[in-house]
Amino acid sequence: MKIIIVGATGTMGTYLSSAFENEHEIIRVASQGGDFQVDITSPEAIENFFEEVGPFDALISTAGPTYVGPWKKLNDAAFRKGVEGKMMGQINLVLIGQHYINPKGSFTLITGALTDEPQVNFANASAANGAVEGFVRAAAIELENGIRINAVSPTVIENSPHYFPYFPGEIPTTMKQLEFMFRKSVFGASTGHIIKP
Amino acid sequence: MKIIIVGATGTMGTYLSSAFENEHEIIRVASQGGDFQVDITSPEAIENFFEEVGPFDALISTAGPTYVGPWKKLNDAAFRKGVEGKMMGQINLVLIGQHYINPKGSFTLITGALTDEPQVNFANASAANGAVEGFVRAAAIELENGIRINAVSPTVIENSPHYFPYFPGEIPTTMKQLEFMFRKSVFGASTGHIIKP
Repeated sequence: MKIIIVGATGTMGTYLSSAFENEHEIIRVASQGGDFQVDITSPEAIENFFEEVGPFDALISTAGPTYVGPWKKLNDAAFRKGVEGKMMGQINLVLIGQHYINPKGSFTLITGALTDEPQVNFANASAANGAVEGFVRAAAIELENGIRINAVSPTVIENSPHYFPYFPGEIPTTMKQLEFMFRKSVFGASTGHIIKP
Repeated sequence: MKIIIVGATGTMGTYLSSAFENEHEIIRVASQGGDFQVDITSPEAIENFFEEVGPFDALISTAGPTYVGPWKKLNDAAFRKGVEGKMMGQINLVLIGQHYINPKGSFTLITGALTDEPQVNFANASAANGAVEGFVRAAAIELENGIRINAVSPTVIENSPHYFPYFPGEIPTTMKQLEFMFRKSVFGASTGHIIKP
């Protein structure tokens, strides 16, 4: 299976690339590094990337830039980081990528527990996650040719301990759980699901 | 109580204005008509409006422009209608309005069943709703001075029968139910809730 991993140089993308590379062809996409450098806030850059990489079977996204910081500094301009990044960046990967993916292919986007379990400093991520999850459920009833779409929604990630103090009481998602959530989406048959640990 | 109703000339806003005007001071806001004409896609226009109207006790929003139409025409440009309108328009009403609202005041935004129950043609609304709901839960733990925030999430509206064919099997929300959902948010004590019929 030819699998595109967007965010391939991040904590999650690095782990998933290693987990899948023995059995599958992995295309590593990142803003810097990887096999392809793509600015996902640019629809043109996304279109050019798909043109170049050609048909594929699955796209995994772990790319989620959002504004993290004090509520007092959260204005329209700050909010745009999550709107253009984690929200529209991922949504455009699907809206554009649907014209390049093989029949019965799948898209798996990243959201997170913040959708339903807010934490101080992370309102931008809660909104972006909510948007992506609403989109995933809606896209699942629109996509044709057996193409599926799901979101993986972890809690704070085991391999990102610097985030633990910002998520009091949240049980970290292990890397193995994360891998298995993506396995369920990519190799299973479900669509329109928000997959949780 | 001084209550601002944004979207006051629409189906929901007209009904709510009538329902509350005998007991409260109602400020009607709309893109056209009403007491104040405000383009909610412009943070500057929102700021100018709050400067002019002064302190208030509650803001109700029923303003939700989104792209409604075929999936095949849903690209980045079309998606922006819901991003700038129902999503960022409402979010900016809160981010800016929090500096003008009285202590213990409340914001009540509009979402809808499409967040969790998608329908063909409405993916943009599903995403915008999801964003607003995630934001509402997050803002509830950030807002100070006892300021509350909730979302009202109706199904298709009783007084909008032209939408019924697009919502097969969905039991319409009556205008009385809609009024009572807003009453629960504005005159109750809850915060961070998504209020459903």
